[in-house]
Amino acid sequence: MQQANTPSLWLDRDRVEANIRRMHEHLLGLGVRLRPHLKTCKSMPVAQMMQAAGASCFTVSTLAEARYFHAQGLHDLLYAVGIAPGKLEPCAALMRSGCRLTITLDNLTAASAVAAAARQHAVSYRVLLEIDCDGERAGFAPDTKTLIQAARILDQAGCEVAGVMTHAGGSYHCRDRDCLRRAADNERDTTVLAAQRLRAHGFAAPVVSIGSTPTASFAGDLTGVTEVRPGTYVFQDLVMVGLGVCTADDIAISVLCEVIGHRAEHGELIVDAGWMALSRDPGNSDQDGQCGFGLVCDLAGGLLDGLQVRHVNQEHGVIADHAGRAIDLSAFPVGTRLRILPNHACATAAQYAGYHVMAADQDQNLYWERCSGW
Amino acid sequence: MQQANTPSLWLDRDRVEANIRRMHEHLLGLGVRLRPHLKTCKSMPVAQMMQAAGASCFTVSTLAEARYFHAQGLHDLLYAVGIAPGKLEPCAALMRSGCRLTITLDNLTAASAVAAAARQHAVSYRVLLEIDCDGERAGFAPDTKTLIQAARILDQAGCEVAGVMTHAGGSYHCRDRDCLRRAADNERDTTVLAAQRLRAHGFAAPVVSIGSTPTASFAGDLTGVTEVRPGTYVFQDLVMVGLGVCTADDIAISVLCEVIGHRAEHGELIVDAGWMALSRDPGNSDQDGQCGFGLVCDLAGGLLDGLQVRHVNQEHGVIADHAGRAIDLSAFPVGTRLRILPNHACATAAQYAGYHVMAADQDQNLYWERCSGW
Repeated sequence: MQQANTPSLWLDRDRVEANIRRMHEHLLGLGVRLRPHLKTCKSMPVAQMMQAAGASCFTVSTLAEARYFHAQGLHDLLYAVGIAPGKLEPCAALMRSGCRLTITLDNLTAASAVAAAARQHAVSYRVLLEIDCDGERAGFAPDTKTLIQAARILDQAGCEVAGVMTHAGGSYHCRDRDCLRRAADNERDTTVLAAQRLRAHGFAAPVVSIGSTPTASFAGDLTGVTEVRPGTYVFQDLVMVGLGVCTADDIAISVLCEVIGHRAEHGELIVDAGWMALSRDPGNSDQDGQCGFGLVCDLAGGLLDGLQVRHVNQEHGVIADHAGRAIDLSAFPVGTRLRILPNHACATAAQYAGYHVMAADQDQNLYWERCSGW
Repeated sequence: MQQANTPSLWLDRDRVEANIRRMHEHLLGLGVRLRPHLKTCKSMPVAQMMQAAGASCFTVSTLAEARYFHAQGLHDLLYAVGIAPGKLEPCAALMRSGCRLTITLDNLTAASAVAAAARQHAVSYRVLLEIDCDGERAGFAPDTKTLIQAARILDQAGCEVAGVMTHAGGSYHCRDRDCLRRAADNERDTTVLAAQRLRAHGFAAPVVSIGSTPTASFAGDLTGVTEVRPGTYVFQDLVMVGLGVCTADDIAISVLCEVIGHRAEHGELIVDAGWMALSRDPGNSDQDGQCGFGLVCDLAGGLLDGLQVRHVNQEHGVIADHAGRAIDLSAFPVGTRLRILPNHACATAAQYAGYHVMAADQDQNLYWERCSGW
């Protein structure tokens, strides 16, 4: 790390392993399958650690991820973004190549497009109907007629109505455990209700799929749910710390950077990690503003009390004290190396082509590539 | 475009050409050299269009850019981020391979590190001393003794004190032309003063380098300045529109996306372009909030009045009317393709591996790769 290029992205393998194990044990205790979302890591060696912990089915956010992970040997993949009609042909190509791909939709136009493409390409798309559990983004209302109509359109075209799915995006606005538990209960109740309605209309709808790291972490009873799709848990981040999902010691990725200057009159440091290296994700700045664009650690990973990345330009970051005190600049001469914990692991990791891997039992340099694009 | 993968990044070659021509003519009229900043495009075919307009020297924001463009035949490169001591060895390697690399610094520790590395690697680093013209980020104060001390440290190690450079980052806060003209005048005056001080102390300091698209666009007299380093001008973006630098019709890149759902109760569209496709750059949301995470065009590039990307998740974008009116959803059925103009061209382009190129006189599909990483 003292010699590595900066900025660069570092992955603590032992922390990743612990994060994976904790989530698997929690969900195993609740009797549900984990279908990890790979949009956070986008890297096969990380998916292999999930497999080693027992995962056999996965979630992706792009067809590029689906192609990458399928080529690496993962075959049961849920593409968890409402299907764009323009993507149905590439989905069919993936299915023909042996991928057990599941797609999602939340409207009749998409259902009709899937039905038409099923006939055109002579494939049976496997579909989860997306349910809106909290008004946050997308999905059928669970009690709407169009949910049943969509299922009929798909069924009549020979597609598989595999069940329902939702994402409790609203849980990210919670500020305490009670709110998160209520969000998890509501996520369960809404999707189970939708699945029951489908079954009452004659559809098997075996799958009830929910997901988000906050609700997965705080769920206490998942009766009726069959699978959970958290993603961020694998690395954790400052947003998850803010939600009480984990502590900063669980965060498994960080950005290595170097001090390139001082703003002496302000008592601030300039480092070679700006938004290109950290992303511009504001994290939980709507909560308390304590994290800025990331919190600052020494090379050993110890948090430097009160230091945050206050400003970012493309390749410059300005580190300041949260409380406005001047930093003792003599403790951080130009050339000092620091590590930045990410606000949002998915966004920070997306700025890199891969991870430098560190682990307690490892001497050699390991680099794990990520996939990217669409 | 009707068949292309979504989301994808599109470049209008005719607009790029016009943007390049306009900036060259403007600066030629002011008697200064253009040293375009390649951090926005990061693509050799775009740099070749700059060469065709007369550019023969360039600016980069990472050593990865320097290596990429040097391998493609550009040899006169300014690395315009204060040098990290850890990067001096790779800089020496680039220089040994024939690159006329110039580096920058703004403190005595970095100057001493450069001097030590010059002796260690037996190379003569070519250095511009960074000047702080507006308290916005980095740089020596122009009237400080340390500026002269740094020049002496470099000179004694056989390095070339090539002159001074600055970046008027404060110009991005301007809200009218008068402010921008004052920022441009101040940028010039501060750097010219610093160069004169160096010359009074016996350093040739032939280069006086300033740069930013806003100040470059509004400069009226650049007496004493030798080169200007704008970057964003090549594509322009909504921040530049907000500053009055250009109009939306000058913006040369856009993100193609597809409607994947409706939020009927809100009169909003869901598209398959979230922050991964657009970046999370807030643009000029501190000014008026009219752009959200991007403005929305039809496939022909015509602005759809009042529509903005209001929210972004990783792969979802929500398009809403700026004034809160419900969008007529029947005009945008699921499957409709739209184009999003970027808040910040550098940030949006950085989310992609390359550009799909369109031009009036071009039939075939063209794809221009970008470089990335550090």
